[in-house]
Amino acid sequence: MGESGGNVVDKNLGNLETVRESLIRQEDSIIFSLIERAKHPINSPLYDDKKMPFADDSSVSLFHFFVKESEVLQSKAGCYTSPEENAFFPENLPPPLLPPLNSTPVLHPPGASININEKILNLYIETLLPLIAAKGDDGNYAVTAASDLNCLQALSRRIHFGKFVAEVKFKDCPEDYIPAIRAKDKDALMKLLTFESVEERIKKRVEKKAMIFGQDVDVQDNDNKGNKCKINPSVVSQLYGDWVMPLTKFVQVEYLLRRLD
Amino acid sequence: MGESGGNVVDKNLGNLETVRESLIRQEDSIIFSLIERAKHPINSPLYDDKKMPFADDSSVSLFHFFVKESEVLQSKAGCYTSPEENAFFPENLPPPLLPPLNSTPVLHPPGASININEKILNLYIETLLPLIAAKGDDGNYAVTAASDLNCLQALSRRIHFGKFVAEVKFKDCPEDYIPAIRAKDKDALMKLLTFESVEERIKKRVEKKAMIFGQDVDVQDNDNKGNKCKINPSVVSQLYGDWVMPLTKFVQVEYLLRRLD
Repeated sequence: MGESGGNVVDKNLGNLETVRESLIRQEDSIIFSLIERAKHPINSPLYDDKKMPFADDSSVSLFHFFVKESEVLQSKAGCYTSPEENAFFPENLPPPLLPPLNSTPVLHPPGASININEKILNLYIETLLPLIAAKGDDGNYAVTAASDLNCLQALSRRIHFGKFVAEVKFKDCPEDYIPAIRAKDKDALMKLLTFESVEERIKKRVEKKAMIFGQDVDVQDNDNKGNKCKINPSVVSQLYGDWVMPLTKFVQVEYLLRRLD
Repeated sequence: MGESGGNVVDKNLGNLETVRESLIRQEDSIIFSLIERAKHPINSPLYDDKKMPFADDSSVSLFHFFVKESEVLQSKAGCYTSPEENAFFPENLPPPLLPPLNSTPVLHPPGASININEKILNLYIETLLPLIAAKGDDGNYAVTAASDLNCLQALSRRIHFGKFVAEVKFKDCPEDYIPAIRAKDKDALMKLLTFESVEERIKKRVEKKAMIFGQDVDVQDNDNKGNKCKINPSVVSQLYGDWVMPLTKFVQVEYLLRRLD
């Protein structure tokens, strides 16, 4: 393992190969976090607006409170000085306690602030959670909320990584994109960013990863094919095909539209 | 996936089979969290007491601040009403915002409060971290601290699970343990709780899990044997053999010594 110095963002994310490697590595993080969330049933009281008797804000769920306050803490720790991180509740976050490291920004500033976390949050709660968690309530709301936060941040990081993808693609070959950007032609940009065979390969890979990471491993077992899986691998493939990749491309399009500003 | 109701702790943890299943499942959580931590280098400024210019407590590292404040938030969310959770900084934690669910305690009260997290924290920082993280500094301290917290809580949960292990073993066959408990004979208790062949099997299993969960998965690849692993599988085996299992047994012995109080 080698010595590294300075900020990772500085070093790597201006290069297509490292951006791709990061995207592949982030698949593992997303799948690990979903497998961990699937340990617990849905635990719907956690998401219930009416359960939290706050004096100052009575319409907030324990989940909302937990995610928001976690982001306040992470912001103090300097989380949101990184262009890879995007808050779910970005209003009024406190400044970092330590001065941020100097780093040369990789992203073009007008697109750096794109944030579609509201969409991601709704998708997660309304659509994904019922697909990965069993019905029921085990009462372990705090651990479940921490697990939700890991899932949400992994998904958000992956989807907003579209900014880096768009930046390296643009830098590689600006003339491919400039006409569509000037024409504000979202459909043309979406076409330029869509490679169906690559997307199919990604869907197959994440399905295989879910199968491998979600299996029960035992010492004797060499063939785990018959093994039941902790999350449904086809749900992970669907998650990527229906949401993660389309939303990443949505971020890329939005970023490119601002790339000449 | 079935409907579940009430509190998991209520339903399961008084039974040896479910305690064993939980221990096996927790191996996956520990390994996932270590693989995630290994994404970042050591990032030593995070753990440096002198880096945090706090007015109220100038000798605290960003890591210490982050873990402590995370526990404050998790305590508000009700985390420490669960007998499975043990805080690293248990002093002055705030009460839960929601009333805790009624549950019949599984653990014998005098042993329920055993907490060896100080030992776990030191081991983690001093010994484990240099074995799983590369040298260097990528500047991503907030994400690294969140990752550390996941590792620490997974390890702490597993090690303090010794309380449930001891309770079910004691309930199954109290006469095996009562003479040694009455004699306060720690060595005799340790012998009663040690099964070398079982421990060897666990070490082999976690090593295999680290290999499987830490591999690079690709669509074409069917044989991942030559694949480099994101954490060294023998480090995970060593972690279990040298620390996780001995510390779990230490917790079991301490619990049993209080079992007749």
